[in-house]
Amino acid sequence: MTANSNSGAQVGLIMGSKSDWETMKAAAEVLDALGVAYEAKVVSAHRTPKRLYDYATSAKSRGLKVIIAGAGGAAHLPGMAASMTPLPVLGVPVKSKDLKGLDSLLSIVQMPKGVPVGTLAIGEAGAANAGIMAAQILALSDEVLATRIEGFRAAQTEAVSESPL
Amino acid sequence: MTANSNSGAQVGLIMGSKSDWETMKAAAEVLDALGVAYEAKVVSAHRTPKRLYDYATSAKSRGLKVIIAGAGGAAHLPGMAASMTPLPVLGVPVKSKDLKGLDSLLSIVQMPKGVPVGTLAIGEAGAANAGIMAAQILALSDEVLATRIEGFRAAQTEAVSESPL
Amino acid sequence: MTANSNSGAQVGLIMGSKSDWETMKAAAEVLDALGVAYEAKVVSAHRTPKRLYDYATSAKSRGLKVIIAGAGGAAHLPGMAASMTPLPVLGVPVKSKDLKGLDSLLSIVQMPKGVPVGTLAIGEAGAANAGIMAAQILALSDEVLATRIEGFRAAQTEAVSESPL
Amino acid sequence: MTANSNSGAQVGLIMGSKSDWETMKAAAEVLDALGVAYEAKVVSAHRTPKRLYDYATSAKSRGLKVIIAGAGGAAHLPGMAASMTPLPVLGVPVKSKDLKGLDSLLSIVQMPKGVPVGTLAIGEAGAANAGIMAAQILALSDEVLATRIEGFRAAQTEAVSESPL
Amino acid sequence: MTANSNSGAQVGLIMGSKSDWETMKAAAEVLDALGVAYEAKVVSAHRTPKRLYDYATSAKSRGLKVIIAGAGGAAHLPGMAASMTPLPVLGVPVKSKDLKGLDSLLSIVQMPKGVPVGTLAIGEAGAANAGIMAAQILALSDEVLATRIEGFRAAQTEAVSESPL
Amino acid sequence: MTANSNSGAQVGLIMGSKSDWETMKAAAEVLDALGVAYEAKVVSAHRTPKRLYDYATSAKSRGLKVIIAGAGGAAHLPGMAASMTPLPVLGVPVKSKDLKGLDSLLSIVQMPKGVPVGTLAIGEAGAANAGIMAAQILALSDEVLATRIEGFRAAQTEAVSESPL
Amino acid sequence: MTANSNSGAQVGLIMGSKSDWETMKAAAEVLDALGVAYEAKVVSAHRTPKRLYDYATSAKSRGLKVIIAGAGGAAHLPGMAASMTPLPVLGVPVKSKDLKGLDSLLSIVQMPKGVPVGTLAIGEAGAANAGIMAAQILALSDEVLATRIEGFRAAQTEAVSESPL
Amino acid sequence: MTANSNSGAQVGLIMGSKSDWETMKAAAEVLDALGVAYEAKVVSAHRTPKRLYDYATSAKSRGLKVIIAGAGGAAHLPGMAASMTPLPVLGVPVKSKDLKGLDSLLSIVQMPKGVPVGTLAIGEAGAANAGIMAAQILALSDEVLATRIEGFRAAQTEAVSESPL
Repeated sequence: MTANSNSGAQVGLIMGSKSDWETMKAAAEVLDALGVAYEAKVVSAHRTPKRLYDYATSAKSRGLKVIIAGAGGAAHLPGMAASMTPLPVLGVPVKSKDLKGLDSLLSIVQMPKGVPVGTLAIGEAGAANAGIMAAQILALSDEVLATRIEGFRAAQTEAVSESPL
Repeated sequence: MTANSNSGAQVGLIMGSKSDWETMKAAAEVLDALGVAYEAKVVSAHRTPKRLYDYATSAKSRGLKVIIAGAGGAAHLPGMAASMTPLPVLGVPVKSKDLKGLDSLLSIVQMPKGVPVGTLAIGEAGAANAGIMAAQILALSDEVLATRIEGFRAAQTEAVSESPL
Repeated sequence: MTANSNSGAQVGLIMGSKSDWETMKAAAEVLDALGVAYEAKVVSAHRTPKRLYDYATSAKSRGLKVIIAGAGGAAHLPGMAASMTPLPVLGVPVKSKDLKGLDSLLSIVQMPKGVPVGTLAIGEAGAANAGIMAAQILALSDEVLATRIEGFRAAQTEAVSESPL
Repeated sequence: MTANSNSGAQVGLIMGSKSDWETMKAAAEVLDALGVAYEAKVVSAHRTPKRLYDYATSAKSRGLKVIIAGAGGAAHLPGMAASMTPLPVLGVPVKSKDLKGLDSLLSIVQMPKGVPVGTLAIGEAGAANAGIMAAQILALSDEVLATRIEGFRAAQTEAVSESPL
Repeated sequence: MTANSNSGAQVGLIMGSKSDWETMKAAAEVLDALGVAYEAKVVSAHRTPKRLYDYATSAKSRGLKVIIAGAGGAAHLPGMAASMTPLPVLGVPVKSKDLKGLDSLLSIVQMPKGVPVGTLAIGEAGAANAGIMAAQILALSDEVLATRIEGFRAAQTEAVSESPL
Repeated sequence: MTANSNSGAQVGLIMGSKSDWETMKAAAEVLDALGVAYEAKVVSAHRTPKRLYDYATSAKSRGLKVIIAGAGGAAHLPGMAASMTPLPVLGVPVKSKDLKGLDSLLSIVQMPKGVPVGTLAIGEAGAANAGIMAAQILALSDEVLATRIEGFRAAQTEAVSESPL
Repeated sequence: MTANSNSGAQVGLIMGSKSDWETMKAAAEVLDALGVAYEAKVVSAHRTPKRLYDYATSAKSRGLKVIIAGAGGAAHLPGMAASMTPLPVLGVPVKSKDLKGLDSLLSIVQMPKGVPVGTLAIGEAGAANAGIMAAQILALSDEVLATRIEGFRAAQTEAVSESPL
Repeated sequence: MTANSNSGAQVGLIMGSKSDWETMKAAAEVLDALGVAYEAKVVSAHRTPKRLYDYATSAKSRGLKVIIAGAGGAAHLPGMAASMTPLPVLGVPVKSKDLKGLDSLLSIVQMPKGVPVGTLAIGEAGAANAGIMAAQILALSDEVLATRIEGFRAAQTEAVSESPL
């Protein structure tokens, strides 16, 4: 996994703190598996607001197409990124210690009219799904990627054995 | 608004019941404002499962690029549509009568690993944002639309008067 | 336990993933104890929608009488099965990792008018009770089974010792 | 509607207070539409425990096949009925004034291992669905009713017009 | 601790299952410490409804003054006991496995007008407090006990050391 | 109703603000109906802490036997009263504007080990039940009152007509 | 009320949208009553992120001492303001349409270690209290204001009439 | 750490029980790091109401400027302290065993109009932030402290490494 590979990245994968990587790497693994170039960075809305401002306002011009942002608790990163870029932003609620991610989920999904964040499930499943959805978006103009995704999903379907034992 | 316009639609706007239109038309209005062609249909996961199956499995070949699905309560439409199409699916939790959309939200957003639904806010704000996000996705390969969205957002920013009175 | 025994099964026991078996086997154990023939299968609403379609639409003609469906998170399996079969469907909310099954419960129980799912408690207790309720339903036209259930419940009552120590 | 028709009733429709009838009549209407004989009674677990005891313990011998019980708040009626009859019991959480039926739902669905209540959605949709599910259960040994239900559901499917306008 | 001591008991301490003793023994310990005679029994509302009926209807004539009832999940024991005795009933929500006692709490406290249950906190603290409150009630006509309680509370106050270290 | 009648009062009925009277008068009505003498006062834990201190510390010596305290939101009145009197305290969660009394309920019921508040249901039903429970407590040493309560409950049972229509 | 008075303002009162003024004016009224100079502005974290950046980073140098920020739903304004100013920030959760302010509350209060927001109650009461708390903070170095606050609170205490009628 | 250092303390750090120190020491650590003098005491609203009364009413005259109060469950300490002092009070919801601090949070934050508590996040993060906010308040009239805080925050920003690995 090339967590910080930057040149040619199509997906910007950002997270509020280093500890969120445990969750967010599931997105990186999916992007790796589907051959989508991405960069992964820690950008804290609250502790590094200037970094967030710079990151979001330059994202499009640097060639990114989709931003995946994960954060927990009062999770402002996805929404604030979305407020400063025209790119589609996907949000991943990271499970919080006490309220189990319910606070993260509501902080990310309940955006006001005008600034959308496409929110995925709490935790690792949501992170992986953010990776898939980013790929689905890119695949709209990339037939090779589209074929790879169909293969990924077919394999996923086949992997579901009928027997529960 | 041409709720059922079909030819050349890029966005499929579906909802679980006719009563959801009250909420979902906010998505249609945004798409109209941004000049994105869409079709709007009632497709009930529970009352018309065959229609859902046909709709979702044919969506890509019919030329759709993004699906917006709104539903309330045990809201299975977005997730089931996502399970049967490679297209990105955006979900809108429609406010439910008793639990105020919390059931709709959890039913839509908590998808398992492998099948993403990009979920927006409960109700009308979420519907409008689904329209914006669909446009953002399409704009990745449509510079004219991208310019229109930037204008839309600039106007939105300017409309926020500083005085609360 | 014959998890996949198929011929002559009266109850179809399905679950969204193999990991749900840990919970759902409590239903199987009750059905075994009461001598009710069942089949147990993994049918994922999201990863194997075609399998679900085939399973639900053929359930009655294959001789099943009751379907028990367990799933977690955005748990669509019970409701989608119910939408495609005239048989009574019992739903078991499997405990989810973060929200402890509250999402599973609301996703299963809050079905819209027209398509019922009889929902049991979250987790193993609910799975066991789904087995009992399936048997109660079958016992309406099976006096031998009815007698067996009465014995089961009498034993259950007797097993409650008065002393807490 | 013959709310109190008693002779030959197959479904016992009980509710915790007279005010619950506003919700529970949706079950009666479905049973009427499907031609299922039922009786409707107010049986309060808390204010008339003796009536509940008599009702539940005699239900089977009086010829009932299914019990539908609706209650709100600390809703003990369905579970207590289930504890005193071998018949399948369906529970309907009636919307409560302050907590909107969340208390009713949890009080009904979270039954311990050994005593199932098949729980439907909060409010009127749940009441209607309890009526349908009772009919589905009876239809397992009544082909005429089974045919009627299939017609009911086909009509329901056809009634879903594709246009949201 | 004399969990089942019966003669002369003033407090009836009942619980829905043997496993609740882990929680409810905190009530017993307080009653022991305050010298209040009690009896402790497992009485399951759902698995032994007849035992509950007999227990509650005879409680007053057997000389009990207060009933403490603990239960978890769809916790019907306190409310059903209260429906069948004129004695004051205190309810203790036992922590449930999945919903952490929120279901237990709502099932116990949200009683309808006419049948009160004085509800304490979830878990062991609530059980201990039920013991204290039972003693406070008895102390209204027992000066010796009143003095003992004042001593108990004074000791409790003194035990709160000012230093957190 | 003699809301402020003081001499010979056995029950102290206090509430956090004048607007709580709308809810709490249901307690007064029950006490009136059962012939229990009470006094009703506004005592705000937050706006009149000195009045609360004086009220609670003098309650027993002034002859009160039971305190009923109602409050909403961060409802500290019942718990703080309980911390300063040896008398049994019953708490009534008054419905709050935004969170519908869930905040009131948790603020009242989740008392730590050592200081119990017997909590009733949210709102008017809880207030009425606090009145009944206070009477049940007093009736332990007042046979006339006990008889009156039995009559009250018998009338309540008889008032439950069997027909829902 | 001089909603936009700027020169010499000690408190910056900002809110996410014009519609929040309905709630936030309660803060302004308190500040007016206590003679504290403030400015009131609409600053949307999501629709005017640049305005927020400018506002927060210049707040201290412009002479402000305390910031009061109100917002609803995914309420990022208070936390983002706090991330860009060394001044103390007070947050007011504005009631949201569907989730009644629970989303607003969690989005504001659950800030990560390092960036505090002192959060008040949901809605108008919280807004008024933010005004009081801002004054309490300023009063630490302003004896005249301190005296005014004491008078305000004494009046508040006196206004609590003992009679609920 | 000098948990009980008293002379010259500017911040009063109180908590409901000794076990809260595990959480609240994070506030002490921040105050130590910023060189703010404080005192730390256990003051239980429920078990030592007199100590609370004395503490809160004397806080200002003893020279304290800010009170930080942490408590769990039915957490009345911050609100009751606020009712008896003109000083600004910051509240820290300590995580509770069963409801994970949701009860603590609502009990602290939902204060009625007139008596504010500036509430921080649940648990250790909230405690640390209470320490920071107390320092921010004191820094309004202490330039040396203000400079120290700016350094603290700059260090915090710099410590956020860009790489998640």
